[in-house]
Amino acid sequence: MTTHSSYSVAIVGLGAMGMGAAKSCIRAGLDTYGIDLNPQALEELKQAGAKAVATSAVDFAQILDAVLLLVVNAQQVKAVLFGENGLASQLKAGTAVMVSSTISAQDAQQISQKLTEFGLIMLDAPVSGGAAKAANGEMTVMASGSEQAFDKLQPVLSAVAGKVYNIGQDIGLGATVKIIHQLLAGVHIAAGAEAMALAAKAGIPLDLMYDVVTHAAGNSWMFENRMKHVVEGDYTPLSMVDIFVKDLGLVNDTAKALHFPLHLASTAYAMFTQASNAGYGKQDDSAVIKIFSGVNLPSKQGEK
Amino acid sequence: MTTHSSYSVAIVGLGAMGMGAAKSCIRAGLDTYGIDLNPQALEELKQAGAKAVATSAVDFAQILDAVLLLVVNAQQVKAVLFGENGLASQLKAGTAVMVSSTISAQDAQQISQKLTEFGLIMLDAPVSGGAAKAANGEMTVMASGSEQAFDKLQPVLSAVAGKVYNIGQDIGLGATVKIIHQLLAGVHIAAGAEAMALAAKAGIPLDLMYDVVTHAAGNSWMFENRMKHVVEGDYTPLSMVDIFVKDLGLVNDTAKALHFPLHLASTAYAMFTQASNAGYGKQDDSAVIKIFSGVNLPSKQGEK
Repeated sequence: MTTHSSYSVAIVGLGAMGMGAAKSCIRAGLDTYGIDLNPQALEELKQAGAKAVATSAVDFAQILDAVLLLVVNAQQVKAVLFGENGLASQLKAGTAVMVSSTISAQDAQQISQKLTEFGLIMLDAPVSGGAAKAANGEMTVMASGSEQAFDKLQPVLSAVAGKVYNIGQDIGLGATVKIIHQLLAGVHIAAGAEAMALAAKAGIPLDLMYDVVTHAAGNSWMFENRMKHVVEGDYTPLSMVDIFVKDLGLVNDTAKALHFPLHLASTAYAMFTQASNAGYGKQDDSAVIKIFSGVNLPSKQGEK
Repeated sequence: MTTHSSYSVAIVGLGAMGMGAAKSCIRAGLDTYGIDLNPQALEELKQAGAKAVATSAVDFAQILDAVLLLVVNAQQVKAVLFGENGLASQLKAGTAVMVSSTISAQDAQQISQKLTEFGLIMLDAPVSGGAAKAANGEMTVMASGSEQAFDKLQPVLSAVAGKVYNIGQDIGLGATVKIIHQLLAGVHIAAGAEAMALAAKAGIPLDLMYDVVTHAAGNSWMFENRMKHVVEGDYTPLSMVDIFVKDLGLVNDTAKALHFPLHLASTAYAMFTQASNAGYGKQDDSAVIKIFSGVNLPSKQGEK
């Protein structure tokens, strides 16, 4: 589609999702720049064919058509854009900024307002799908913003997304849809943990319980994906417990702003927070199951 | 497989699941008998090729090889088997009784003990999959019991099940696996309702929210199946709110017996109970969403 493009995009935040998105941009023929503080991530993207990589965009900010932000949270988005030597002040007017971190609608609106003051255009565009889909350029993007923002970011969206939802014009709608999605994702992981811990307590072999659920109406995407880690006793983090402490915290903030009672998501938030405080914050989010005491869980092959 | 079979089975309880199972037995060539209090259900099964149908098995109990119970709860199972003119006293010794209602492990064990006193063999064999899979002979069966029980019921299992899990020898394990499965199913419906109600409150179109979730990692079997009813505003019951009041009640009983803390399932139980008390007990279980006040939900096409 973009066989001889001179479209330039910088991806800020080369974690699991950002790295996949950046490589997808390279594959799509975009002039791709990578920004991160981690030298290994920069080297990996350089090898993959990036035009340039750096810990700051100062050397190439003026030639960019678009920026895609995939940092961890709103604080990092604000630091990157508006902190010391902030990117917003270096970009040329009219550059499109796609904010894909999971943040609150309020933060999305604040960031948009400040970007507008710099003459920049924002797309409120959280993503879902995990590292594998990011690597394949098949992320699900739930986006809100002006028609102009969608148009300017079309080459990036084509490169990184399998599916793009246009939620509407108003900045904040994309963030809200993602947060409601995270409500489900978080509750499903916590419910999977509660069910598997109860099964262990009842003397049901967990591999069998997993097999039954994944072939029946009790299944969820998260159960199938994350409870496999419990069955294998492997809590190597793909996504950490602390990410859901953050995301379910955002869910609760959103509900509070809307004066809406959350029965399940508030409980799931407490479960992940308890797991984090017990020392499992940096483990895989399925480690929320470790809040249940007196239960024998499988250990990783080769470990005691 | 059973081309010229003289295997006789009676299905007790011709609701959505029982009717499907009974017709699957007929299709598999088994001599099939139907028992229910509803004359319309009896007529339907008679038309489908049943050997005989009746409100009681007294006329054909002696020729049965097996009985499949798909009544609503443990109370009904006990009434059918051990009540006035109970079936247990009419069956010949060695008849296999497959108990497929969702009941507690304690009830399963009590029932098994009494059946043993009558010289009968029990399979603790709850099912999952919904009416469509029952109709196609593709239910998921999660069963525990003796090798003899599995052997004697093989023709029935072949006819009604797409997948049979052998959980172990001990009566009660099948019931427990089903109850843990229902924990997930119930929490997933309640979480779907909470998420969709929050989306409505935030001004997100529910058809769009549904579309995003069902294409992303927040999806569950129950979200995809039941929240469609919310999007369509159609609460015609496929499975009722009151069924989950019962099943999540069993989940809580099971956890109490095992001294296990249920964070999410206890909350989901409260949500379904609240919906039932508000007058929605006989509506589709997705009507649990109606506990959220001040939210505009879609109405059925043609209704205000």
